[in-house]
Amino acid sequence: MTKLSVTEVAELIGGEIEGKSREWISGISKIDQGIPGSLTFLSNPKYAEHLFSTQADIILINRDQEINSESDKTFIRTDNAYLAFCQILNHYYNPARDKSGVDNRAVISSSASIGDNVYIGANAFVGDRAKIGNGVKIYPNVYIGDDAVIGDNTLVYSNVSVYHECVVGKNGIIHSGTVIGSDGFGHAPKGDGTYVKIPQIGNVVVGDDVEIGSNCSIDRATIGSTRIGDGVKLDNLIQVAHNVEIGDHTVIAGQTGISGSTTLGKYCVIGGQVGFAGHLKVADGTQVGAQSGLNKDITEKNTQLFGSPVMPVKDALRSHLMIKDLPNMRDRISKLEKLHNQSEKKEKE
Amino acid sequence: MTKLSVTEVAELIGGEIEGKSREWISGISKIDQGIPGSLTFLSNPKYAEHLFSTQADIILINRDQEINSESDKTFIRTDNAYLAFCQILNHYYNPARDKSGVDNRAVISSSASIGDNVYIGANAFVGDRAKIGNGVKIYPNVYIGDDAVIGDNTLVYSNVSVYHECVVGKNGIIHSGTVIGSDGFGHAPKGDGTYVKIPQIGNVVVGDDVEIGSNCSIDRATIGSTRIGDGVKLDNLIQVAHNVEIGDHTVIAGQTGISGSTTLGKYCVIGGQVGFAGHLKVADGTQVGAQSGLNKDITEKNTQLFGSPVMPVKDALRSHLMIKDLPNMRDRISKLEKLHNQSEKKEKE
Amino acid sequence: MTKLSVTEVAELIGGEIEGKSREWISGISKIDQGIPGSLTFLSNPKYAEHLFSTQADIILINRDQEINSESDKTFIRTDNAYLAFCQILNHYYNPARDKSGVDNRAVISSSASIGDNVYIGANAFVGDRAKIGNGVKIYPNVYIGDDAVIGDNTLVYSNVSVYHECVVGKNGIIHSGTVIGSDGFGHAPKGDGTYVKIPQIGNVVVGDDVEIGSNCSIDRATIGSTRIGDGVKLDNLIQVAHNVEIGDHTVIAGQTGISGSTTLGKYCVIGGQVGFAGHLKVADGTQVGAQSGLNKDITEKNTQLFGSPVMPVKDALRSHLMIKDLPNMRDRISKLEKLHNQSEKKEKE
Repeated sequence: MTKLSVTEVAELIGGEIEGKSREWISGISKIDQGIPGSLTFLSNPKYAEHLFSTQADIILINRDQEINSESDKTFIRTDNAYLAFCQILNHYYNPARDKSGVDNRAVISSSASIGDNVYIGANAFVGDRAKIGNGVKIYPNVYIGDDAVIGDNTLVYSNVSVYHECVVGKNGIIHSGTVIGSDGFGHAPKGDGTYVKIPQIGNVVVGDDVEIGSNCSIDRATIGSTRIGDGVKLDNLIQVAHNVEIGDHTVIAGQTGISGSTTLGKYCVIGGQVGFAGHLKVADGTQVGAQSGLNKDITEKNTQLFGSPVMPVKDALRSHLMIKDLPNMRDRISKLEKLHNQSEKKEKE
Repeated sequence: MTKLSVTEVAELIGGEIEGKSREWISGISKIDQGIPGSLTFLSNPKYAEHLFSTQADIILINRDQEINSESDKTFIRTDNAYLAFCQILNHYYNPARDKSGVDNRAVISSSASIGDNVYIGANAFVGDRAKIGNGVKIYPNVYIGDDAVIGDNTLVYSNVSVYHECVVGKNGIIHSGTVIGSDGFGHAPKGDGTYVKIPQIGNVVVGDDVEIGSNCSIDRATIGSTRIGDGVKLDNLIQVAHNVEIGDHTVIAGQTGISGSTTLGKYCVIGGQVGFAGHLKVADGTQVGAQSGLNKDITEKNTQLFGSPVMPVKDALRSHLMIKDLPNMRDRISKLEKLHNQSEKKEKE
Repeated sequence: MTKLSVTEVAELIGGEIEGKSREWISGISKIDQGIPGSLTFLSNPKYAEHLFSTQADIILINRDQEINSESDKTFIRTDNAYLAFCQILNHYYNPARDKSGVDNRAVISSSASIGDNVYIGANAFVGDRAKIGNGVKIYPNVYIGDDAVIGDNTLVYSNVSVYHECVVGKNGIIHSGTVIGSDGFGHAPKGDGTYVKIPQIGNVVVGDDVEIGSNCSIDRATIGSTRIGDGVKLDNLIQVAHNVEIGDHTVIAGQTGISGSTTLGKYCVIGGQVGFAGHLKVADGTQVGAQSGLNKDITEKNTQLFGSPVMPVKDALRSHLMIKDLPNMRDRISKLEKLHNQSEKKEKE
């Protein structure tokens, strides 16, 4: 990162400069691992102790943050120091910013349509009739199948595979190793223990502003479309089966799996290593803790769930914590039984 | 898909045409999302309500399906409407059907042997002495290592890696990102807390008619072979460790992991996110529910298991459902103890 | 493998030859699946029965192993037959041994620095200012981003992606499909249910002597580095989130996931399908059983844990086994309640 002007940065985020005057920002650091000359931010009160001891010199702070007037730091006040910090980084730091042009070792079908200002790296493959939007960046060794569509300004990292006929929206990011459009897992039993493949003739439709982590598998629909809504964020190694629908702005942590035809609502927050059975409907705003398992519809919106099978999170925490009390509970039951037997004996005597 | 002849389709599946006469099928649709002019099928009685309301015009039905003689649909009666539907799609719809020829940007060792009627896409790599069977289709950016074998008519999608010496059978499908033949996880403790690599000098042998989903990891054997039987179907993101053997026609759902040297029988049905410990023997026909964990041999055939650790499925469902009753059970025990103490006190008085 | 000299092999491992004299080793086999003329080893006493019945002719044995003087086998005595066997294979068997040279179809930035005696396969990509050490082997279709570093003698298999600025140490092995340096999962809620991307401007630093299995996802840090210590061994399909640190010589089995900013100590042994919550500190030498879930710090060193949430392994096994007794426990409580009610009734009469 080249040097940034303090004034320019403050203007970008609509912030006010306070404290010691400084002209340049030399880099970015964390407040508890501050580097002299660098920009950092304070958002989480847990880190407030570092506000004056940090080696960083320019600090983004929230409007209501109290500061010590004797400090020799430069402060930039803003409504939300954390979001402002992200905004600065998204503006100035973009690893693909300098990538441009179509490498002559990329393999592009003559029937593909390629937008303006694209980057297509060496050994990338773009199939017949594929549509690559304006400003798209496709890294080396990516495979884009026939009739696939990549929307404007989407970034596709190395070794991604987008199968034929799949559609990815605008302003997205797809990380390496992710597969979009592999066949759904459909095999009809023939009755003799063997199976016949159920052809998967649908596709995958990914909305706008979606980020998909590395090594995810998103299967194409049997018929129709597997759908990832706008603004969805998927972590790594996630399985999205055929005909799944994920509502807008839902976020899902790593290694979670969603079985076929399940529909997740909007604004859901799903932890890591969660499993969803097939054909479920999960209401908007559902929050699910890590390693949970869902095997029934969630009809009420905005509930917090945990466990396998899931329960309301408070019940689940209480119940699961009690598993370690089971030996104790059994002993208590045994003792009660013994006492009962003794008193019965006594009565008989 | 181009237009299909109703008569030709009926002949292909050995079905009889009934109802309104129609000449052409314009496409494929689901019965509950029917498109005018298209072919659909009715197999699951749950969807019977759509039989006359669907917009689709040609409907595959089972021989015993009752129909309304006033309907203006075209019906094709057959023994198994669902299998017939798959058969039609497998016949007419094949995304790789038009792929042929060896791209001059594929990298193929001069010592490799390449069968007839193959497709090898741009930037695919085929190593020394590798054998590519007749009718094989290898998509762009695939890596086939030295001495590897791909059997006749197998389809290998983009960005797959098949390591040296591994063998894939005939009529298979391997989806993008899958790795066949990476080293098994073998590290011998030296005694000082560090490890020495146990070289993995075996290979992987995949049978005929196998489909492997995307981003699976199938490790080569330490010595000998990791074996995937004929007709096995693996979903996405599955881990198959070194020296595992999977019996013929076993199907496994996404994100399941099988530890080293475990043997699964034939005709097993394994849910998603299941874990198998190492060195187990699992009998033919075993069925395991999602998120289960197995840590012991399953010797009886055709049992249904669930839970972690697994139990017979009925016991497991009953036991796991009771976890949420634990707080209640504890309260009942506490109450009994209190009552007992009171009555004891009373007795002493 | 070409023929090996028995004398040379014995010298390599500092072993003594006993029994029938033989000159050549023709191959490698397992003691229970021995092949005439081949070398095998006996380490696990469970396999001692095969010592004389095996078809293998040359057998590595521990110094204290008793043998039958009438045997017609050739024995090589050594301190640790298993480690010696590994040493022999690592010396003589190395699939990448013959790979050398830079393929003219590799795509290498003119600003990259390439060490001596490297192998860079066809269609591999090496970005601007990347540093490839001496003796490195990079297989076809690998992507090495700008400013990335691959240390001396490291082996990178096909279709791996190493993002910009990430650093891999010496003598490592990275298997196919693994992604190093994808963006950490960071999205700050804007307050309206949508998110703004938190740029991930850190990197990944992998130590020396590390082996990483296939299809792993190792995210770059938000700021600073995600760190994999020296001698770490990762199995397949493992998720390592941003800013995680894994201590030296820790081994982790397949499909385990570690959430952001969690620190694992040195010499840990982690089973498969385990989940770690974020921001945890796990002490050196911690051992965690398969499918466990950790949601709190582990402060005591060298503990053995199991379950979700984890408990000391003995407690966990006892408690989890009792889940299947829950219906029985409930019945016993119900019976006690009934008995209590009866006796109360009686008293009242």
